[in-house]
Amino acid sequence: MIRIAVLGCGRIGVMHAANIAAHPRATLAGVYDIHAPAAAAVAKKTGAEVFSSVEAVLASDSVDAVLIATATDTHADLLEMAVAAGKPVLCEKPIDLSLDRVNRCAATIAGSALPIQLGFVRRFDPGHAAVRRAIVQGDIGELHQVVITSRDPGLAPKAYLRVSGGILRDMTIHDLDMARFILGEEVTQVFATGSRLVDPDLMEKLGDHDTLTVVLTTASGKQAIITNSRRATYGYDQRVEALGTKGMAISENRRPHEMTLHTAVFTDRAEPLLNFFIERYREAFDAEISEFVDAVESGRAPSVGFEDGRLALVLAEAALKSIAEARVVAVKEIA
Amino acid sequence: MIRIAVLGCGRIGVMHAANIAAHPRATLAGVYDIHAPAAAAVAKKTGAEVFSSVEAVLASDSVDAVLIATATDTHADLLEMAVAAGKPVLCEKPIDLSLDRVNRCAATIAGSALPIQLGFVRRFDPGHAAVRRAIVQGDIGELHQVVITSRDPGLAPKAYLRVSGGILRDMTIHDLDMARFILGEEVTQVFATGSRLVDPDLMEKLGDHDTLTVVLTTASGKQAIITNSRRATYGYDQRVEALGTKGMAISENRRPHEMTLHTAVFTDRAEPLLNFFIERYREAFDAEISEFVDAVESGRAPSVGFEDGRLALVLAEAALKSIAEARVVAVKEIA
Amino acid sequence: MIRIAVLGCGRIGVMHAANIAAHPRATLAGVYDIHAPAAAAVAKKTGAEVFSSVEAVLASDSVDAVLIATATDTHADLLEMAVAAGKPVLCEKPIDLSLDRVNRCAATIAGSALPIQLGFVRRFDPGHAAVRRAIVQGDIGELHQVVITSRDPGLAPKAYLRVSGGILRDMTIHDLDMARFILGEEVTQVFATGSRLVDPDLMEKLGDHDTLTVVLTTASGKQAIITNSRRATYGYDQRVEALGTKGMAISENRRPHEMTLHTAVFTDRAEPLLNFFIERYREAFDAEISEFVDAVESGRAPSVGFEDGRLALVLAEAALKSIAEARVVAVKEIA
Amino acid sequence: MIRIAVLGCGRIGVMHAANIAAHPRATLAGVYDIHAPAAAAVAKKTGAEVFSSVEAVLASDSVDAVLIATATDTHADLLEMAVAAGKPVLCEKPIDLSLDRVNRCAATIAGSALPIQLGFVRRFDPGHAAVRRAIVQGDIGELHQVVITSRDPGLAPKAYLRVSGGILRDMTIHDLDMARFILGEEVTQVFATGSRLVDPDLMEKLGDHDTLTVVLTTASGKQAIITNSRRATYGYDQRVEALGTKGMAISENRRPHEMTLHTAVFTDRAEPLLNFFIERYREAFDAEISEFVDAVESGRAPSVGFEDGRLALVLAEAALKSIAEARVVAVKEIA
Repeated sequence: MIRIAVLGCGRIGVMHAANIAAHPRATLAGVYDIHAPAAAAVAKKTGAEVFSSVEAVLASDSVDAVLIATATDTHADLLEMAVAAGKPVLCEKPIDLSLDRVNRCAATIAGSALPIQLGFVRRFDPGHAAVRRAIVQGDIGELHQVVITSRDPGLAPKAYLRVSGGILRDMTIHDLDMARFILGEEVTQVFATGSRLVDPDLMEKLGDHDTLTVVLTTASGKQAIITNSRRATYGYDQRVEALGTKGMAISENRRPHEMTLHTAVFTDRAEPLLNFFIERYREAFDAEISEFVDAVESGRAPSVGFEDGRLALVLAEAALKSIAEARVVAVKEIA
Repeated sequence: MIRIAVLGCGRIGVMHAANIAAHPRATLAGVYDIHAPAAAAVAKKTGAEVFSSVEAVLASDSVDAVLIATATDTHADLLEMAVAAGKPVLCEKPIDLSLDRVNRCAATIAGSALPIQLGFVRRFDPGHAAVRRAIVQGDIGELHQVVITSRDPGLAPKAYLRVSGGILRDMTIHDLDMARFILGEEVTQVFATGSRLVDPDLMEKLGDHDTLTVVLTTASGKQAIITNSRRATYGYDQRVEALGTKGMAISENRRPHEMTLHTAVFTDRAEPLLNFFIERYREAFDAEISEFVDAVESGRAPSVGFEDGRLALVLAEAALKSIAEARVVAVKEIA
Repeated sequence: MIRIAVLGCGRIGVMHAANIAAHPRATLAGVYDIHAPAAAAVAKKTGAEVFSSVEAVLASDSVDAVLIATATDTHADLLEMAVAAGKPVLCEKPIDLSLDRVNRCAATIAGSALPIQLGFVRRFDPGHAAVRRAIVQGDIGELHQVVITSRDPGLAPKAYLRVSGGILRDMTIHDLDMARFILGEEVTQVFATGSRLVDPDLMEKLGDHDTLTVVLTTASGKQAIITNSRRATYGYDQRVEALGTKGMAISENRRPHEMTLHTAVFTDRAEPLLNFFIERYREAFDAEISEFVDAVESGRAPSVGFEDGRLALVLAEAALKSIAEARVVAVKEIA
Repeated sequence: MIRIAVLGCGRIGVMHAANIAAHPRATLAGVYDIHAPAAAAVAKKTGAEVFSSVEAVLASDSVDAVLIATATDTHADLLEMAVAAGKPVLCEKPIDLSLDRVNRCAATIAGSALPIQLGFVRRFDPGHAAVRRAIVQGDIGELHQVVITSRDPGLAPKAYLRVSGGILRDMTIHDLDMARFILGEEVTQVFATGSRLVDPDLMEKLGDHDTLTVVLTTASGKQAIITNSRRATYGYDQRVEALGTKGMAISENRRPHEMTLHTAVFTDRAEPLLNFFIERYREAFDAEISEFVDAVESGRAPSVGFEDGRLALVLAEAALKSIAEARVVAVKEIA
């Protein structure tokens, strides 16, 4: 049993805590939150210990590893502290909104052989992972084109959007990682274009965009296209398509159930998609914990690590530059 | 080029005439209808000859074969006349509403080696035919269960229903033939139950049913289930499913196009099904003509012949007896 | 928090125990199994108390309600004991293989107002429940026909089949309950036909069938058709279809994920269905516990109770008689 | 009856001739081909007159309108001749590979009020047209993003590729028109990137690309993304997706039939897509003729005209420039 403590008991921390508690090879060793009642509430249901400080968690002998689910601007600090304390880490994305800070963090932890996993949970989605597996198995031959559709059900609250770092660092970053995961080779050139269509006034004020297209290319000419929107009324739209010399693999959306209605004016009418990332990626969050438990048990590096977090941020920076200058940006201009 | 004359220029005769005219290996040699202007209208568009009598058609040297699309109560007579005249026949179903008349017709034409094809058009539907092909190829192993869903978009006009011979002889007869086609072996026992739900008063008056379930079994225990309704508001519902030891094949419904709509209250909303048998079975009607042309060209028996028409009627009679007596009826009680 | 003890720590008891432990409004108060290590294993992961006897569970003040997941032949006894002890019960189906025993059990508990829920879990499946909801909401108008497809991925072990009570009492019983649930009115007539196609020798020996069709009708003429097979190689096939005057609702199968493959020889190729009832009905098992928690909290009767368990068994008996006598059996001949 | 003559009896001319002959409001008045036997073969089946020259067609009183289906480099000349002769024209795309020539043609025919229709057949596809209709009806609210997937089953013959004008003028031009059709407003900026993945050597030699992504934006910020490939082994991949404030409309691919196979290793396996544009767009080619007949009958402008042909070519030129210069190109740089 791997004993994992969860730092941060907000929405996503609470979910991780429950998943760890229910996991067959893990136990929830403890919880911490800067707001003590949040941690206490999790402890009450799970029986886990409440820690009074991050330091106490990291010093505890009953904690094998930590999961960082605190506010984004604390990720890099906590990650460095955990590595210093010799605790393997599963850190929610992004590492930081600043590429500089991420680069410094990379330098700080450079020597460590500890398992460090980044929370790019979508890599563990059964459907998306099956697309990658189809490629690796040769089912679609040589990969040519990847199309990633990623649309939120609606705009996040303004308060969140202000600190999110913008659509590219907050939302697209998942898709940039997914593109790297599916492509299986590094992106060398980035083109992006952003529009303000969902809430033009707010986006103008924030200097942000709500509708985005990103085109990534690799040295060998593979193309990955990402289409983003902050507003898909029909639900959380998450699709991945890969075209190769021998065929195509598509990971389609999931619905809450498979009931369809057929009447005189329509057929095949189904429910809206799952709206909420915690429901949509339920199996993926479970599998993410399993990957972390495997890594801690074996001491090997997780399949998605710190450098993946850093490179996704590099691509986000390149995309921002591309929008600003209306041209293709070479990744090496950034990294 | 096979020169085919069409007898009967009602809705289905007009369609056949157009298909023959457009067929790469056939020409429309002529048309006849008891109501001369109906034939003239077809001739005007296609340039085909208008014949003034069935006898003239059958005597003509420029007619290689005939398609019988007249009223049901003339089918058996015309079929016998055509065979006597040495013309291959494609006859619309049913041969007759009376099994006695069909048996007498069978006796009359018994010696003939002419190609005689019955208009069980659904055997030529690309989807339904692919189910049969999957079975023949061994894709689903030994066949165990067949489920045929067959529902009309709405009640036919009363005038038609009065002369239709009842749901079993008019509508289910197609499904009984489909069951035989898919099963690939003869049905030995029949169970049926009928309800009056779509228009109870009318059905009571006609002594007919509008909602039907038929269960057929073969000597080896294979089962075929037919569900019929006279009212499927969502369109003409035509599905065939076959379960075997190795898998399942399903022929699903077709839509007029593949546009789907996704909003805050639904996803995947498609158009109603094709409503009309001529549109739904467009490819099948084409393929039916090709089969007839092949048979006439080669002199071999068509894949669906007179005896298939007779046996479907035998099963309909067995089903009627089953409803009346609330028990399983052995086919040999009828045949 | 409702404190629930689980009796029986076999496959299904272990699953229920985990679901109760993770439920937001329930706690796992204790576990019992005739084989003590089975209970101990569950207790180790969840921290629940291990009880040494059923009597101890029923006498405990820290147990609000019990879930019976023991061997079928103990269900009726334990149910009676729990009711006598004043504990609400969630009992796995079937109550007993003998209708006599079930009727006696009904008499014994007749006066009790305790919540007693039967484990017809499929009623809680989001898709199947949505079909029923569509009917109740009037989305498909007056109901005419119900088609239930229910096929196991493969034959259960012989040892199990010998004590299962036969396909009708073991497997079809779920579908008979589903038919009652969807129909929303009582079945008055039953027709069934059984074949031996999956394993003819074994079925002959057991006097059982592996391929089944059941046709149920209500007094108003509504029809429900059940097709069963012990062998669907493509996975656990669980579909419910309802046709009404205004339209149709279908609850389709679910797949482990939505990845499809498209190549030169096929398109839309998806994974086999979920094979295992615990995975297929995961959400339903969760919702079943929620329904029980609601009932215990409120003291009201659960939506699916003892009489539903009894009536499903009555229909199974009628179907067995129908197979034996090759005729329609009136339900009142049995009940 | 509108009497239409077909100029050019290659593959597509033969198809148009047959469609015109079968059309209820049109007749095939005549055919012409530079290679006389090609015209004779069409005439034999349809009974149409064979003309010995374009001049003879245009001078004939029995010809109301002409369809130009000759080699691309003759389109502009024949179009000018037909207009001069006062015959309405349906001209296959593209008007010419040279934008200069197209502009000169535009100037030549500028004064004419004759119906001139461009052969952008995909606008008439029932599914794609339903996407546009959904937008016009307000079903998806304000349009934000359009995604067009357009992939050929395989590389055309080298001989064709050499004279095709390149992927943008030959293949993407359909998608550029589709983007304009769906967007409903003019494109102002174009980005494109091309790769050589299907046949790198040949593409290098031709200075062409086989894998393409084009991103179009309008003045209001609407985005249209086109993904092209010369090789989709699973068939002719033709999809259109539109996202708006209220929802999404998708026109999905069509299959030859709806039979799916389900076994122990897969489910839902369908046939490859229709491979050939004439089959895939069969209904669209019919509807295109109907639109032309309507226009000729009424004298009004067809819904897709000369200027649409010209503007698609302008976008193709902009995309070529974008690829060459790795930057966004403003449409006004070209037009």
